[in-house]
Amino acid sequence: MAHVIRTIKRPDPALVEAIARFTPATLHEAQGRRGALASKIKPIYPGMTVCGPALTIKSHPGDNCMLQLGISLAKPGDVLVFATDDSNEQGCFGEVLGTWAMSRGVAGLVTDSGVRDGPALNKKGFPVFSPGLCIKGTVKESLGTINKPISFAGEIINPGDIIVGDDDGLVVVRPSEAAAVAKSSQERDDIEAKFMASYGEGADHLALTGLDKILEAKGITYED
Amino acid sequence: MAHVIRTIKRPDPALVEAIARFTPATLHEAQGRRGALASKIKPIYPGMTVCGPALTIKSHPGDNCMLQLGISLAKPGDVLVFATDDSNEQGCFGEVLGTWAMSRGVAGLVTDSGVRDGPALNKKGFPVFSPGLCIKGTVKESLGTINKPISFAGEIINPGDIIVGDDDGLVVVRPSEAAAVAKSSQERDDIEAKFMASYGEGADHLALTGLDKILEAKGITYED
Amino acid sequence: MAHVIRTIKRPDPALVEAIARFTPATLHEAQGRRGALASKIKPIYPGMTVCGPALTIKSHPGDNCMLQLGISLAKPGDVLVFATDDSNEQGCFGEVLGTWAMSRGVAGLVTDSGVRDGPALNKKGFPVFSPGLCIKGTVKESLGTINKPISFAGEIINPGDIIVGDDDGLVVVRPSEAAAVAKSSQERDDIEAKFMASYGEGADHLALTGLDKILEAKGITYED
Amino acid sequence: MAHVIRTIKRPDPALVEAIARFTPATLHEAQGRRGALASKIKPIYPGMTVCGPALTIKSHPGDNCMLQLGISLAKPGDVLVFATDDSNEQGCFGEVLGTWAMSRGVAGLVTDSGVRDGPALNKKGFPVFSPGLCIKGTVKESLGTINKPISFAGEIINPGDIIVGDDDGLVVVRPSEAAAVAKSSQERDDIEAKFMASYGEGADHLALTGLDKILEAKGITYED
Amino acid sequence: MAHVIRTIKRPDPALVEAIARFTPATLHEAQGRRGALASKIKPIYPGMTVCGPALTIKSHPGDNCMLQLGISLAKPGDVLVFATDDSNEQGCFGEVLGTWAMSRGVAGLVTDSGVRDGPALNKKGFPVFSPGLCIKGTVKESLGTINKPISFAGEIINPGDIIVGDDDGLVVVRPSEAAAVAKSSQERDDIEAKFMASYGEGADHLALTGLDKILEAKGITYED
Amino acid sequence: MAHVIRTIKRPDPALVEAIARFTPATLHEAQGRRGALASKIKPIYPGMTVCGPALTIKSHPGDNCMLQLGISLAKPGDVLVFATDDSNEQGCFGEVLGTWAMSRGVAGLVTDSGVRDGPALNKKGFPVFSPGLCIKGTVKESLGTINKPISFAGEIINPGDIIVGDDDGLVVVRPSEAAAVAKSSQERDDIEAKFMASYGEGADHLALTGLDKILEAKGITYED
Repeated sequence: MAHVIRTIKRPDPALVEAIARFTPATLHEAQGRRGALASKIKPIYPGMTVCGPALTIKSHPGDNCMLQLGISLAKPGDVLVFATDDSNEQGCFGEVLGTWAMSRGVAGLVTDSGVRDGPALNKKGFPVFSPGLCIKGTVKESLGTINKPISFAGEIINPGDIIVGDDDGLVVVRPSEAAAVAKSSQERDDIEAKFMASYGEGADHLALTGLDKILEAKGITYED
Repeated sequence: MAHVIRTIKRPDPALVEAIARFTPATLHEAQGRRGALASKIKPIYPGMTVCGPALTIKSHPGDNCMLQLGISLAKPGDVLVFATDDSNEQGCFGEVLGTWAMSRGVAGLVTDSGVRDGPALNKKGFPVFSPGLCIKGTVKESLGTINKPISFAGEIINPGDIIVGDDDGLVVVRPSEAAAVAKSSQERDDIEAKFMASYGEGADHLALTGLDKILEAKGITYED
Repeated sequence: MAHVIRTIKRPDPALVEAIARFTPATLHEAQGRRGALASKIKPIYPGMTVCGPALTIKSHPGDNCMLQLGISLAKPGDVLVFATDDSNEQGCFGEVLGTWAMSRGVAGLVTDSGVRDGPALNKKGFPVFSPGLCIKGTVKESLGTINKPISFAGEIINPGDIIVGDDDGLVVVRPSEAAAVAKSSQERDDIEAKFMASYGEGADHLALTGLDKILEAKGITYED
Repeated sequence: MAHVIRTIKRPDPALVEAIARFTPATLHEAQGRRGALASKIKPIYPGMTVCGPALTIKSHPGDNCMLQLGISLAKPGDVLVFATDDSNEQGCFGEVLGTWAMSRGVAGLVTDSGVRDGPALNKKGFPVFSPGLCIKGTVKESLGTINKPISFAGEIINPGDIIVGDDDGLVVVRPSEAAAVAKSSQERDDIEAKFMASYGEGADHLALTGLDKILEAKGITYED
Repeated sequence: MAHVIRTIKRPDPALVEAIARFTPATLHEAQGRRGALASKIKPIYPGMTVCGPALTIKSHPGDNCMLQLGISLAKPGDVLVFATDDSNEQGCFGEVLGTWAMSRGVAGLVTDSGVRDGPALNKKGFPVFSPGLCIKGTVKESLGTINKPISFAGEIINPGDIIVGDDDGLVVVRPSEAAAVAKSSQERDDIEAKFMASYGEGADHLALTGLDKILEAKGITYED
Repeated sequence: MAHVIRTIKRPDPALVEAIARFTPATLHEAQGRRGALASKIKPIYPGMTVCGPALTIKSHPGDNCMLQLGISLAKPGDVLVFATDDSNEQGCFGEVLGTWAMSRGVAGLVTDSGVRDGPALNKKGFPVFSPGLCIKGTVKESLGTINKPISFAGEIINPGDIIVGDDDGLVVVRPSEAAAVAKSSQERDDIEAKFMASYGEGADHLALTGLDKILEAKGITYED
């Protein structure tokens, strides 16, 4: 079995665009409380966002040779998903690789490793989601895999899955479900917009959502 | 014993205002190094501050039905204190509840649970203190309590206690002690302002504070 | 053996200035992947930077009497390195000490303890590197040492060692190696600048760095 | 307000004995999934158990003067509950205090601080529940409180509350509820004993507990 | 898509038996440093071991309804692999479920959730691998999946994959690779046995393994 | 500067033997609350103890080539101190290296890395102090240093320093201070033995230690 799959099936760009209109939190709920990644992986600076198909990379901890190879295989719009067994006390990515990745149109990096050159990456506007910044260098010693399904931050990520992130964290949307998820996300956003508008007019959220009935059924008791 | 106490005694707004003039660090020292909450609970974006009487909510982890009920009972200026046994890998609060809470005049949310919709909450200016942002949804399944004393972040919080927070974290001030604490906080601030002014003129901090004598009494030794 | 060494050998200011031109990540690589401190110690607000000779302080946890004494011994440009056995649930430093330290020309504080008065320190522009903000006060009870070699954040720090930090974290450079490290840092920056410029023109990073050959030698296999 | 309350109301020894017949897990469920303390506090050696009324002690971190005073006030059968703001990188209790406490009939120590002399305490058979063993010594500098309600490991503990622990961790039972909790614990144990006996005869747990119906109602679907 | 797959392909028992002769550490190395699960999942008491095909269960945190359903579908020798998004502050499994599982011939439980009734499970000899013991109860509210591939402790686990554990932790072996892995594990064990025997006779490990040459090639330098 | 110092000054065996009579906790106090290592480094099985001069090894994370070289340089009685920047999610040492080390008379291993083959090491009786067991393998790629001073677990360790450990954790004693430390440890043990004997006869610990006076001087107040 080869280490690297060169060609993967990417979702229709229109589908990615449709998903990009929603926050990760909305997408997570809209697909039935599924797909959220471990919360420790966050943008390295607040405000960074990302949305695109995953190019999956599996590496040994503290080793970035597969990440570099992965960048060379990326297509514009791809999100690098780099799994390293949580080696967050090392910096596997920095300004040089970020600049190269940007020149290739890469949409962002998502990793369970530390990264470095935070200020420079932030200035250049390359979105990186990671457990944190770390200076310590890496080796180029052990082969891993590229574009195979990986276990990452608590979810299986397949190459081509849509990865979406903001300050809240990250969610994965399966391309086969993306159209339906976009639709239910829009419905959810519409309902929530109505709810939020109604609060200004004094609406009762508990009645709107039926939570008052649920609590009553569970036998809640009050005292003045 | 009822789950929910509807009516609580809130401190005089003038008292809350008097306390709001000081930072949590000053209040903590002024009341004898007491009342600071666990440092992991921080504003979800730097710069958020909060001050107001606690509306206390005790919940099972990963469940937000009591939080929603709590908002319905809040008075303008209240701070929601939502205890969940540290379920920080779930997001118990977001933009919809935040908008509803703002419409009811709630001053902020303080919780040991994760929250979500960080960017939207930040944009709307609703202060939230939490261990972090997390996308993962919750259930509405188990009853808890509202407006009873709770153990939260290492301190007992009673309904009506004054909760104060900034980037440094949070402190609780008991209403019965608030007037005295405000007074000693002011004295502390006055002394510190004098100290800080004097440094510009070359004053010796060790002599000012008497620490030179303390160190000498402990037998400190020097070598050139 | 005395607790406090009053006089230490500081590196030539020109050397400190030469080192200050590089990021900690570059310096770490330039000196052979050495000298990076534990990544949990970070600027308390993004964007803070520091560079200067270390004044080393070893303290018992939750005690800041030695830190105050240390400030009194600092020379303009010094970086206070305050080791406390990771007492990050206490705030050993705040606005008063920060103001005093600034009046003495101290370049910054680096500590494994928590600190407080974050907003005021940020406003005054005093750089602090710490595991985090914490309100809880300290005692002035146990003597430690000043200006002896200490174990701090995973490295030995000698008085006079050059400490450099930015958002990525901190690195220590030994004065005896500083001239060579500055030279190789410049070479590294020059090469990386060329690399980054070439990406815009479509250069192949793997070929540039020889990684393509390394991967081939390790037997990497591909599938289309 | 005094630091120390000398006399507290202890529950009837027969009540403590009735509670001691059940495991903490059973008691927790029997009182409605309430009262379990944070799981990080565990016996320092497997197999230690404890049950008795709480003598509550609140201390500054890394300080054990109040703990020593607390032992002097203990009655036979008391469990020391020593709250220190999670100072688990210090050892606040060891063989000398353990021997003294045993000589006074103390039933055990429950703390969020580290402890030391683990091997000696284990050999002498004194049960200690703590986040872990730590060598580092403490100071005797700051006053705290004894026999006031405290926030400990996520629950409010009042003096006289019954504390029960085994390898699973700890639970608190309020004396006013203890008789009822003992009764429902016994009922729970009886039902579970019947369940467990029936499995040997091939009983279907899902049918016994009605979970099959619950899952069906939630719309669970199967595929062969 | 159904929640539950009732029938899965299990590996030949002879294959499981062949794998069970080796430790997880040996299997991990023999299959090319692959397949080790996150080290936080350990036997709840030292000495527990497990080996068998995985029955995979994916659950919402703090919910054990799918685990109970999973036990009802287990065949003798199966290992339950129960993924809960790391809800280690809850106890999702205890003596009743353990007794039922044993009556059905289940070989053990592997989970990223807490468990309870540790002493009883240990006494009955049912092996459980978990991040730790925790008393806190769970709900039966949200559906998950059974016998689909899951992301667990950093690896993808498919139903029928062979799970092997001892005090060192856990490893997964794919059935399609098991025969080859058993063979290379035996070769590895044979070589290591020879090495270990030779040390008693004064053999030089560095020469035996060729590490002396590797270090020399890397330019290692010595000083007496 | 060479990577490896072959010859170090070891303390007189009689001195090591004198120190070995005391627990790490006693030694820590006897040398003025100094020298305790970070508490996360513990025996991998309860009951293991170690005492001997340090052979210091500094390594990159997840790399054990220097550890193997270090064993080849050890003298009977040496304690390997292996610093790896806390790579506790990898297993840098196991049965083969343990057997080799035992054949060379090595007294034990102390490391901030994970280790593996726990059951075999325990059976053979080789003491290992580590943050925990981990299966994951390592590389042999980057050179480090042997027998130079290192920063390890919060203390500077020099080659030849005496390392002492039991279930409580580890302490370092400097050879130049060892005779004095042994003497004051014995005095401390003698006093504590007297104290402990007197408790059986009803002695008042607070009066014995003078803590009653200290508390009084601090203004402690009582209420009945």
